[in-house]
Amino acid sequence: MAAVIKHLLGIRELNVDQIVHLLDTAETFRDISRREIKKVPALRGRTIINLFFEPSTRTRTSFEIAAKRLSADAINISVSTSSVSKGETLLDTARNLQAMAPDCIVIRHSSSGAPYHLARICDAAIVNAGDGAHEHPTQALLDALTIREHKQRLAGLKVALIGDLLHSRVARSNIYLLSKMGATVAVAGPGTLVPAEFAGLIEQGVRLERRIEDAIVDADVVMILRVQRERQTDAFFPSMREYAVHYGLHLNHLSLAAPDAIVMHPGPMNRGIEISSEIADGGRSLILDQVTNGVAVRMAVLYLLAGVSSGDDETKRAVTTDSETRSGSVKRQRSRKRSLREEQ
Amino acid sequence: MAAVIKHLLGIRELNVDQIVHLLDTAETFRDISRREIKKVPALRGRTIINLFFEPSTRTRTSFEIAAKRLSADAINISVSTSSVSKGETLLDTARNLQAMAPDCIVIRHSSSGAPYHLARICDAAIVNAGDGAHEHPTQALLDALTIREHKQRLAGLKVALIGDLLHSRVARSNIYLLSKMGATVAVAGPGTLVPAEFAGLIEQGVRLERRIEDAIVDADVVMILRVQRERQTDAFFPSMREYAVHYGLHLNHLSLAAPDAIVMHPGPMNRGIEISSEIADGGRSLILDQVTNGVAVRMAVLYLLAGVSSGDDETKRAVTTDSETRSGSVKRQRSRKRSLREEQ
Amino acid sequence: MAAVIKHLLGIRELNVDQIVHLLDTAETFRDISRREIKKVPALRGRTIINLFFEPSTRTRTSFEIAAKRLSADAINISVSTSSVSKGETLLDTARNLQAMAPDCIVIRHSSSGAPYHLARICDAAIVNAGDGAHEHPTQALLDALTIREHKQRLAGLKVALIGDLLHSRVARSNIYLLSKMGATVAVAGPGTLVPAEFAGLIEQGVRLERRIEDAIVDADVVMILRVQRERQTDAFFPSMREYAVHYGLHLNHLSLAAPDAIVMHPGPMNRGIEISSEIADGGRSLILDQVTNGVAVRMAVLYLLAGVSSGDDETKRAVTTDSETRSGSVKRQRSRKRSLREEQ
Repeated sequence: MAAVIKHLLGIRELNVDQIVHLLDTAETFRDISRREIKKVPALRGRTIINLFFEPSTRTRTSFEIAAKRLSADAINISVSTSSVSKGETLLDTARNLQAMAPDCIVIRHSSSGAPYHLARICDAAIVNAGDGAHEHPTQALLDALTIREHKQRLAGLKVALIGDLLHSRVARSNIYLLSKMGATVAVAGPGTLVPAEFAGLIEQGVRLERRIEDAIVDADVVMILRVQRERQTDAFFPSMREYAVHYGLHLNHLSLAAPDAIVMHPGPMNRGIEISSEIADGGRSLILDQVTNGVAVRMAVLYLLAGVSSGDDETKRAVTTDSETRSGSVKRQRSRKRSLREEQ
Repeated sequence: MAAVIKHLLGIRELNVDQIVHLLDTAETFRDISRREIKKVPALRGRTIINLFFEPSTRTRTSFEIAAKRLSADAINISVSTSSVSKGETLLDTARNLQAMAPDCIVIRHSSSGAPYHLARICDAAIVNAGDGAHEHPTQALLDALTIREHKQRLAGLKVALIGDLLHSRVARSNIYLLSKMGATVAVAGPGTLVPAEFAGLIEQGVRLERRIEDAIVDADVVMILRVQRERQTDAFFPSMREYAVHYGLHLNHLSLAAPDAIVMHPGPMNRGIEISSEIADGGRSLILDQVTNGVAVRMAVLYLLAGVSSGDDETKRAVTTDSETRSGSVKRQRSRKRSLREEQ
Repeated sequence: MAAVIKHLLGIRELNVDQIVHLLDTAETFRDISRREIKKVPALRGRTIINLFFEPSTRTRTSFEIAAKRLSADAINISVSTSSVSKGETLLDTARNLQAMAPDCIVIRHSSSGAPYHLARICDAAIVNAGDGAHEHPTQALLDALTIREHKQRLAGLKVALIGDLLHSRVARSNIYLLSKMGATVAVAGPGTLVPAEFAGLIEQGVRLERRIEDAIVDADVVMILRVQRERQTDAFFPSMREYAVHYGLHLNHLSLAAPDAIVMHPGPMNRGIEISSEIADGGRSLILDQVTNGVAVRMAVLYLLAGVSSGDDETKRAVTTDSETRSGSVKRQRSRKRSLREEQ
């Protein structure tokens, strides 16, 4: 089965081979950031545009570092919603950027589906860096890479997902990915008492729990979601203090999980609200490993989408996992190996 | 006649040879953005500062991409007017930047003439990226490059310029350029009923019309200007709706123009106000070609101003079109050819 | 005595050898910005993060140009205090950036001591680009480089420091550096009539004067401090006009100083308040030399902190001035010379 990827819009559209190929590629890139010379010429002469309609220091920095370590030219564009409202449409903005011949546009937008609109009209590869409450695929990939690094597998793992599922693109992308890869997911958080809202999740095999204790029992992985005050439209809980009491993760919760359970959080953390400092800074926390793996995953995504060209226009940017052993791919493999070597 | 350019402050100061040389150079750069490796080492080790006192994602991005595709180091400085008011003068800011030894300062400023002040005190080449309602020379150059690409000439063409001429630096630069190159320009828009304001334009041979139909008749090129609500100081028209009715371009207008007439707009567009979507997205629209040519023109400008050095201090950065055939320029031609080759 | 530097947090922590080594290194870097190709490969593949919690076009630009002329990848992060207040702590931000494996974090923050917190938890070299009213070490180094350039020494010089000492990190860093290097410092400004506040300065051998004339008498160097309206918390003077009358430097003051006295100001200037334009633009003013030397000093700091690696983990990034003559350092010297050559 081919792992062809032209855009990275959501985890939902990816198949298992594509996910594995992305994670395997990220693994090979992780080493580059540990070197003294943290740079390979893989994307020299490629133009990557970071188009952020929502402020995000963390994700933008991760993509920018990834692009620069691949020797790409990175262009940052921060658009406040105010300036958009008095100006052109999103599609006109995208058409204009496309006319400047970028190889990849990384977009973050407050509207679900914005990256899909871009993909329809742009030749450039589109990477979704978070669209509304819809998906945040590179976050799910870096989470999976972190789990695989510590558990050597994804299939068969029990994952507890704690927090405000309804407003979380991180949750959605993680549920798609973990379900596809054979993990089982139990979720608990404000709003999980409203089953109608979660019909789609139940289809994915997700188990809904009302109390976080019930979701955490025997979990191999405990994923905490960030309370996003800015995105909170419904009043599922009356106050931050209330949230901390009912859905904040504390040390005693961890005794319910598997003995070697790991804890993850996509950041930035609200310490004392969704996670206690004892856990955040404790031995089971992989929160900073997630950030490190974020750079590796974004390098892999940019490399696979903006870097590999087969010359065949239809399959431009295609990467087929199964063909790697065929003779026809030797040249590409060799050139890829060359591009992974350090610069002189 | 020599095509020496040290700064690019306005089209008004350029002669025909200089304009032709800039357009010819831009044409050679257009190809670079079509390659897989969109980068040449022409400006490696040069420092280009983008100093923007007005927000402009589009123009800043175009200059930044141009600089990076030439391998220059691009530094973006966005200065809000508020921070300037409590701080140092424009000239002190410029003197300070000059002390950091940039090769080129690209400046956008709300005051007409700001780039001229910089040119008097800076060794760096100054490029006007729009100053008040005065000039926007790279816009006129990219418009001319686009027209020449489709009409193979500028001389003898009939150009209709529609919109608020009084507040438009784009209009001013285009009128200078088109008049110098032998095109005839007819303008129509709010305010063209006030001839006193347009004395200077009439000197350039521009024909003033009250109705846009009269300007468009037999036109080879229809240029639409953007309604700049932020720059609108006089109330020449009561509302946007009123503007759309009287000065918005619709399909029926185009039947008045030459059969192969082309339509241009500097962007960002206010769809449904100065231009209808049928025209913007139609077969005659070259709006996205303009954006593509914008990168090429800015590469040419940066290359000619910041890149070529003859060693003779007086004619530093000079490029003489007539000397290209002389033996003395062989070395420069050869090194320029080398600098246009892709990076290895 | 070893000139080992891992971080640059303040001048107070530096010894004389370290200061001399930084200044000597900066001197060798000054030449690079005078070349046509203003770039050396010294920091290729290194990641430098400019993390600015206070706006500062000037200092950020200087660090960014320094990083790029050393071929480092420079990442700019501007964090408004507002976004911090609703988000993670400074230390969590730092931990996250550290997880992306930068080689150096340049930080400006409104809180004194912020860079020290970072240094405790980061492997990356931390450079203080101004912390509250505490220190601004690269400013003191560039001032010292400028003085040494014109006076060939620091020891024995008489320096007058005029302005609001209490709120000035520039003053503090300069007093530490000048005192360590054997210069004598006399200060005058609003608040110097309150000796209790200046106990620490008196310990450094600083002479407090009430009238600026008394500080300037026989001075070899007159350093003017910027009136920082934004940082002014106490009302030591009633108005800007009052300040200009009592503490503004005018031409007649200079007749009191040594015949070859030089005048300096860290910028941006408030002309007509703390300094008259006759002096700012006069022959004794070295204000723009300071800016030029700022790039050289920052190149030296980044090079010494992020670039030199001895392989020995304990002394990673160490540079020992005394060992330079030993045979063991030949290889490092040679490779450093190579890294200072222009790129091909």
